[in-house]
Amino acid sequence: MANSMMKHFPKLLCRSMRGTGRMVAPPPSLTPNSSKSYKRVLSALGTPLRSLSTSGKLSSAFFESQHPLVPGTTFMDDTNVYQMLNKYETILLDCDGVLWGTDHFTHLSGVAKTIEKLRSLNKQLLFVTNNSLHAREAYVEKFHSQAGFHADIEDIFCTAYAAAVYMKDIAKVQGKCYMIGSKGMQDELNKLDIETIGFGPDSDAVSEDIDSLLNQALEDNVDAVAVGYDVNFNYNKLFKATSYLTDPKCHFIATNDLETREMIGKRHCQPLTGALVKAVAAASVRKPEVVGKPHYHLMETILDTHPTVDPKKTLMIGDSLRTDVAFAHRAGISSALVLSGETNEDRLDKLLALPKNSIGQTPDYVLPSVCFLAEFI
Amino acid sequence: MANSMMKHFPKLLCRSMRGTGRMVAPPPSLTPNSSKSYKRVLSALGTPLRSLSTSGKLSSAFFESQHPLVPGTTFMDDTNVYQMLNKYETILLDCDGVLWGTDHFTHLSGVAKTIEKLRSLNKQLLFVTNNSLHAREAYVEKFHSQAGFHADIEDIFCTAYAAAVYMKDIAKVQGKCYMIGSKGMQDELNKLDIETIGFGPDSDAVSEDIDSLLNQALEDNVDAVAVGYDVNFNYNKLFKATSYLTDPKCHFIATNDLETREMIGKRHCQPLTGALVKAVAAASVRKPEVVGKPHYHLMETILDTHPTVDPKKTLMIGDSLRTDVAFAHRAGISSALVLSGETNEDRLDKLLALPKNSIGQTPDYVLPSVCFLAEFI
Repeated sequence: MANSMMKHFPKLLCRSMRGTGRMVAPPPSLTPNSSKSYKRVLSALGTPLRSLSTSGKLSSAFFESQHPLVPGTTFMDDTNVYQMLNKYETILLDCDGVLWGTDHFTHLSGVAKTIEKLRSLNKQLLFVTNNSLHAREAYVEKFHSQAGFHADIEDIFCTAYAAAVYMKDIAKVQGKCYMIGSKGMQDELNKLDIETIGFGPDSDAVSEDIDSLLNQALEDNVDAVAVGYDVNFNYNKLFKATSYLTDPKCHFIATNDLETREMIGKRHCQPLTGALVKAVAAASVRKPEVVGKPHYHLMETILDTHPTVDPKKTLMIGDSLRTDVAFAHRAGISSALVLSGETNEDRLDKLLALPKNSIGQTPDYVLPSVCFLAEFI
Repeated sequence: MANSMMKHFPKLLCRSMRGTGRMVAPPPSLTPNSSKSYKRVLSALGTPLRSLSTSGKLSSAFFESQHPLVPGTTFMDDTNVYQMLNKYETILLDCDGVLWGTDHFTHLSGVAKTIEKLRSLNKQLLFVTNNSLHAREAYVEKFHSQAGFHADIEDIFCTAYAAAVYMKDIAKVQGKCYMIGSKGMQDELNKLDIETIGFGPDSDAVSEDIDSLLNQALEDNVDAVAVGYDVNFNYNKLFKATSYLTDPKCHFIATNDLETREMIGKRHCQPLTGALVKAVAAASVRKPEVVGKPHYHLMETILDTHPTVDPKKTLMIGDSLRTDVAFAHRAGISSALVLSGETNEDRLDKLLALPKNSIGQTPDYVLPSVCFLAEFI
């Protein structure tokens, strides 16, 4: 948790930390709808942004009507949560940075309660994540065991599944798929009858000798190379992916490409799928077909699965301007940015201080975290 | 060898092929200075370019004076080789694609004779390659055993050596260097007393578990991450490089970044250093300090080693517009593009058909191969 967020939202968000020696926030002590909590939250939202204006006004009306950098963006408070929620029947929830920390395991308290309250208002909740590590079943289990709520498998849209649907329905892959990816991705592909090769450690010997590279067998009838998160990624896998992609008819499919890294410790930084995709794209001199957010394909998959979803009455809640908010713009749905993940308060502050065209897509709403909604329902 | 080159230069270049089942050109049968060979070469150069003009004139004077796409570029023939060579005291020779094929082992016949003839004209020959696989000693040996000529170690400028010099003299690295690279790079770094870590296979277990990543030890006092060609490149190496680079004081040094792949068979495509650099750059969100061509640093290293080199009287002979010709422009020296490597005749033809600003840097001279010079000396 960034220091400034810790300062501004000292008790609003609580995370249970698995690691040792990491900062643990105190348990939540807010009374829903209390004016005390409202004032603290609004003040927290307003304080770092005050420097952008000399008016000193800190109401949402100020941000909406007068803030020169975010026209059309509403900063949520207790006066407008119901009003906002009334506009939407379907809510798409990003996972990493929204339902839990961007490190995939730091928990946000109050998520289960928020889910329950939103469902009590008859909101349809769908879960949309760029994470390619797990199959949908794993999310059902993770929601249950780590976040304390239930979700049906058809309400989950992870990029391992999205890649499989894209390959089957859009790319119409008939042959094999050489995959750089996880067991979850392999499972999703196999479930749609796509034959996969390449999963797991590459068993060919590593050598600087060209003849040794030439001796590595390439299979026939490989119609797609799919790249997701893969800790077994290595030179030989890059070599095989690149070689298959010399065939211009072979599809190059990536689960996502914008997420390239995640700080998981003070010095430890985890490379993400985007970095692996960059290597394959550079070596193959090919541009990937990206199935994850912000690309529209994911919305098609959602609409195919749930034909009653009305984009005009759909809200995407996510932590990333580049993926979640940009996806909402492309999909023709509304967006709410939470400050509990990639775009924390510090980062938003910096973004807002940049020239307008540097902000990228602006969200319709900004709120501290998804749990903030539960405070005012 | 591209088919069109085989068609146009059927006997000018000869390669001895190590592999099995690959096309082998007939031995050279040109008589130096024969008008027959001259006409064939000039015709070969002219034919594919004729489509750019309706004049049908195929003399070098045409290309030099009238070709709208390459003003200032002289296409070499027997009338201007001496004239060109008289301008230069020092010749920088690229290696891959110039002294041998871009696959590193296909031999061009006549290289040793060309080297001998150029030296008989008192030309100082220096060897400048972006290949980071070998230390300078290996080039002395490779020149001797594979190309049949001698070179002194101080006349060789490979990027493994350039990286070491850059780290010592420019970046002034005091601590350790985490390297993604070859034994040759390690040797060059160690010879300049730079302590290296990371060479060879990464011994840490591969795991999707975040705690397992966090348990991978990071050393202290790592002042540089150096990335060159490394067949042991894998996720853990990417993770460690990315983690070290979270320290903004840690230098991110790449031997080269433009070369991302090389076709080594009909379907087999070898990923090169540029692809590995792209992955590290994406995961670290850092821009590398590149020591190889086309960056100027290499010229500084050359001038430090050979202070008598006069840039105004220096010619770079290489096969790449992006690296060799661009390097010459940045270094303030002249350039000659050979069509025996990356920029083969087909590719040059395509480049010349593009709008002028797509060509990039234009060379001062174009010739089929370095051995072409020997025909007219």
